[in-house]
Amino acid sequence: MGKESTKSTLLDAGKQVFLEKGYNHAGIEAILHAAGVPKGSFYYYFESKEDFGLQVLDRFADCYRVDIERFLGDTSVTPLERLRRYFESVCERAETQQCRNGCLVGNLSQEMAALSEDFRLRLEEIFEGWVARYAECLKEAQEVGEISPSIDVHALAEFWLNSWQGAVLRAKTTRNTQPLRLFLQMIFGTILQALA
Amino acid sequence: MGKESTKSTLLDAGKQVFLEKGYNHAGIEAILHAAGVPKGSFYYYFESKEDFGLQVLDRFADCYRVDIERFLGDTSVTPLERLRRYFESVCERAETQQCRNGCLVGNLSQEMAALSEDFRLRLEEIFEGWVARYAECLKEAQEVGEISPSIDVHALAEFWLNSWQGAVLRAKTTRNTQPLRLFLQMIFGTILQALA
Repeated sequence: MGKESTKSTLLDAGKQVFLEKGYNHAGIEAILHAAGVPKGSFYYYFESKEDFGLQVLDRFADCYRVDIERFLGDTSVTPLERLRRYFESVCERAETQQCRNGCLVGNLSQEMAALSEDFRLRLEEIFEGWVARYAECLKEAQEVGEISPSIDVHALAEFWLNSWQGAVLRAKTTRNTQPLRLFLQMIFGTILQALA
Repeated sequence: MGKESTKSTLLDAGKQVFLEKGYNHAGIEAILHAAGVPKGSFYYYFESKEDFGLQVLDRFADCYRVDIERFLGDTSVTPLERLRRYFESVCERAETQQCRNGCLVGNLSQEMAALSEDFRLRLEEIFEGWVARYAECLKEAQEVGEISPSIDVHALAEFWLNSWQGAVLRAKTTRNTQPLRLFLQMIFGTILQALA
């Protein structure tokens, strides 16, 4: 493998191991093994486990941004319908692994925010990026009259993201998508109706 | 220290170390040190780290139940006011440690639900107990006319708990109670108004 491809393989393997075991519980050896990369080459690519963890996180956030954009940028449907389709798609993806993995950003927030200031700041930045993107879509929903002009779309987007993260967390203990479906039902069936 | 008191000291120390570092990252030596208990006595009281972890969790849930009851059992105020006061109190407590610790049940769900079936089942049982208690209070709110009789109080209680857990998680990265306050504002100011 070339340098970039080895690095990329390591980052992908790291994501998967972090999703399954968490950051602290994940050994570098297990990541190298999962990536099929010889021992000893880790520190050629990364300064430390934390440097590696932060790069895994960045890569995850980049992929996620593309995925969000695919749905929220789809102007062939109304803004609220874009949001609905996006969250339905996340829900379906969660179903394929019985909601075991959760969300890497949520997981690492739980595990690392109090232990590493570098992690905390990066995680908060990613969350804020998501909130800003949801808020932009909610603003468009406001402009086309899907929700009331009096709504603070940023506050609603914050609440939305946080509640969704809670639903993803709970789905780890129920081991099914019921908490995610309930969230969608409450947000689209009750809250947005009330705010229409 | 007597046997029960040593065990109790270890469980308290475990709770604190788990809240600060997570379960997997917490060493038994650090817990013994924090408890001021000599090395070697751990396995006299506990079969394994997992047995210890589950007992820490049980103890936390027992304390929490008493705390919830103190608020939700206070019939001198209306059912919704009981819920409001309870969540305000949790919010104030979170403020004292700058929202670093999160909720032990939420934290362990994130970290352990996919790794240990014993943890997952116990965590889900605790969550279900909380949901049932919130639902009971919401049912009372229905009986006194604070919310509409058509509401599914159990579904609302599930959504409430999950969203709150998400707010607690997010507060770990914002390092302030803003997500908790936003939750309270949305649930009491918007959602319950819409469901009145």
